[in-house]
Amino acid sequence: MNAQTDAVGSDIKGYMRGLGEQARQAGRDVARAETGVRNRALEATADAIYARRQQIKDANDKDMEAGRSNGLDSALLDRLQLTDARMGAMAEGLRQIAALPDPVGAIRDMSSRPSGIQVGRMRVPLGVVGIVYESRPNVTADAAALCLKSGNAAILRGGSEAIHSNQAIAACIGEGLLVADLPETAVQVVATTDREAVGELITMDDYVDVLVPRGGKGLITRIMEGATVPMIKHLEGVCHVYLDSDANPDKAQRVAINAKTQRYGTCNTMETLLIHETVAPELLPAVADALAEHGVSLRGCPVSRDLCARVGEASDADWDSEYLAPELAVRVVADLDQAIEHIEAHSSRHTDAIVTENWSKAQRFLREVDSSSVMVNASTRFADGFEYGLGAEIGVSTDKLHARGPVGLEGLTSEKFVVLGNGHIRE
Amino acid sequence: MNAQTDAVGSDIKGYMRGLGEQARQAGRDVARAETGVRNRALEATADAIYARRQQIKDANDKDMEAGRSNGLDSALLDRLQLTDARMGAMAEGLRQIAALPDPVGAIRDMSSRPSGIQVGRMRVPLGVVGIVYESRPNVTADAAALCLKSGNAAILRGGSEAIHSNQAIAACIGEGLLVADLPETAVQVVATTDREAVGELITMDDYVDVLVPRGGKGLITRIMEGATVPMIKHLEGVCHVYLDSDANPDKAQRVAINAKTQRYGTCNTMETLLIHETVAPELLPAVADALAEHGVSLRGCPVSRDLCARVGEASDADWDSEYLAPELAVRVVADLDQAIEHIEAHSSRHTDAIVTENWSKAQRFLREVDSSSVMVNASTRFADGFEYGLGAEIGVSTDKLHARGPVGLEGLTSEKFVVLGNGHIRE
Repeated sequence: MNAQTDAVGSDIKGYMRGLGEQARQAGRDVARAETGVRNRALEATADAIYARRQQIKDANDKDMEAGRSNGLDSALLDRLQLTDARMGAMAEGLRQIAALPDPVGAIRDMSSRPSGIQVGRMRVPLGVVGIVYESRPNVTADAAALCLKSGNAAILRGGSEAIHSNQAIAACIGEGLLVADLPETAVQVVATTDREAVGELITMDDYVDVLVPRGGKGLITRIMEGATVPMIKHLEGVCHVYLDSDANPDKAQRVAINAKTQRYGTCNTMETLLIHETVAPELLPAVADALAEHGVSLRGCPVSRDLCARVGEASDADWDSEYLAPELAVRVVADLDQAIEHIEAHSSRHTDAIVTENWSKAQRFLREVDSSSVMVNASTRFADGFEYGLGAEIGVSTDKLHARGPVGLEGLTSEKFVVLGNGHIRE
Repeated sequence: MNAQTDAVGSDIKGYMRGLGEQARQAGRDVARAETGVRNRALEATADAIYARRQQIKDANDKDMEAGRSNGLDSALLDRLQLTDARMGAMAEGLRQIAALPDPVGAIRDMSSRPSGIQVGRMRVPLGVVGIVYESRPNVTADAAALCLKSGNAAILRGGSEAIHSNQAIAACIGEGLLVADLPETAVQVVATTDREAVGELITMDDYVDVLVPRGGKGLITRIMEGATVPMIKHLEGVCHVYLDSDANPDKAQRVAINAKTQRYGTCNTMETLLIHETVAPELLPAVADALAEHGVSLRGCPVSRDLCARVGEASDADWDSEYLAPELAVRVVADLDQAIEHIEAHSSRHTDAIVTENWSKAQRFLREVDSSSVMVNASTRFADGFEYGLGAEIGVSTDKLHARGPVGLEGLTSEKFVVLGNGHIRE
């Protein structure tokens, strides 16, 4: 038990439900606050991050020290560290979210019905958003800002290794809320590293309207198993690029190489390349050579191995692997149908792309592939809230209901019906 | 075990998973089918219902007979019965759904991004819809039609008391699918009354994308407890009408009386009337008299009882009661804030209305009341998919995510991103 947990006490359930009750109440105030008030809170938080940068740095040093002595690997330590540049980016991110259009209160499709009433849909906040995330402390500021901008209260549960950094950032958010005359409880960072707190958060259906876990597949799976609160979640990205017989060879190479090598650790990176058998003899060796220059190793089907010595043997598990690394599975297919069948069987329904000049095949691919993003002649790496023009991204959803694909502010809202009458009654 | 169950055998889990697998496969064919093909299936089903009306009648007689000998009450027997008029309405309903615009494939917000790609959203079917419903056999045709129209496959589980009627209607749907050259397995009616079948259906996450239970609160609660598949559900309608100090008295009376008396058993019927204290002395007795003429009995707060002898005593439970009967709770409130607080505490977030001529108060009510439908100067009875112009209604959702309020065909679809490039890569 550390200092933070002492402050919370041993009744974790009571503590968490207290946060929930306060969040529910504060959420009403945030939902009712005008656009300018919510924006002011974000801008004042950015100011506070600058003003308190030394305190944040000190808190982060504590976490870094503990991380080192707990043997965190260098990648995790790097993600944990808050440099001046990273704090600057955090503050800038807050200002950018403040500058986005306000989704709350927008009314669409207001129309008159034969009965005389007018009916439309108004966009409204969900209420309280629960965020569970891992080591990167900048998520604290980013997630809080997205929740406030969309009119919601937030309960944030960061990784235990970042608890001091997260608390220091939370203090800045509290200051920002105070400046804007919003309740400080509109954003609450869980002040204990006890795991029971997560278990409580993800089952407080009466206080939390939606959960957004941000982290690796392990974190998401653990939360999925226990959660009763609905989630906006992203499990994994097993993304495909299919090079069709009618692909332009230059575009095919450019897209395939970018989709694999532009970044390896991202969920929209290609993990399996499918190539039509008529173009594979020419295209596969060329693509494999280019990928080899990037240090990417290939594992493929027997036909692909016959065509190219660079391709090693793929096992069944390769077709479902999210490598997040310079590795790629390759399969030669007989036609578009076989490509779509492969994608149906193995895609995580995140993002899949076709490269073709054939209009009908492009249309079929767009229509028939059931993934959150389907692309023609473009790199899967474009599947991203910023690239799509959403302005911000709370995550990517591989679910079908509510939000699908990159999720912006809209994903943290819903629509209610508004009905305007003049004493109208139903006959 | 009856004849139906015999046909299924004792391996209910295996049987249900078989249905699921077939539905998943058939769902792909339905999703890819052109608009005209899906419409033809619905029209051919309507024709088959007419052609086979005697067989349906015979099957329904069997259910009615069994119902009588099992002691079903007259209301349930009435709901179970299929008259010529009801079969005609069922066929007509199918033709109306066929005539609705096709939601599938619609693309919105296609726009060019600075990177050069074009990004838009395409509306697509969810895949497989599971419907669990109670005695009314016409739901079999109606729900199947909504699923097919929106490009989904369906697995239907009706009440055991209607199993022969449902199977007879299912045969007509099968004929309709055959005429349109769609797989008969696109709509499957569970051929066993074993309860284990429901337990399996609501947990087959890999085969069922969404559940739509249609029935009373008891059915929904039972399903909620066991379901792992996401649901579009409606728990109850504890709807409020608030008569403000600035209400026009004629509109106030008209709306209040219609909201309570136009039908008693519907979820959008007013169950609690709130009246501002300055207008209560005049309005409450007048409204109470009019309601008394309809045979509605009132239970209220102490102030309301002082103002009107017709008002009996309300217990705490009354504020949360969905009477579905000629009963009404009444409370006199000090102001709009207290009205909104009451609604926050007791509303089921279905539909709530204000009657007022005051612009600011109307705006506050619309913005601050967190219900799926919020109304100004209109009867809560308007909360309905047909009245809202959705063309059809699969149900009413009191959830916040995915679909909220009356749910039309759109609720059975989601949107995926489509990205169009010309060999574009991410820099």
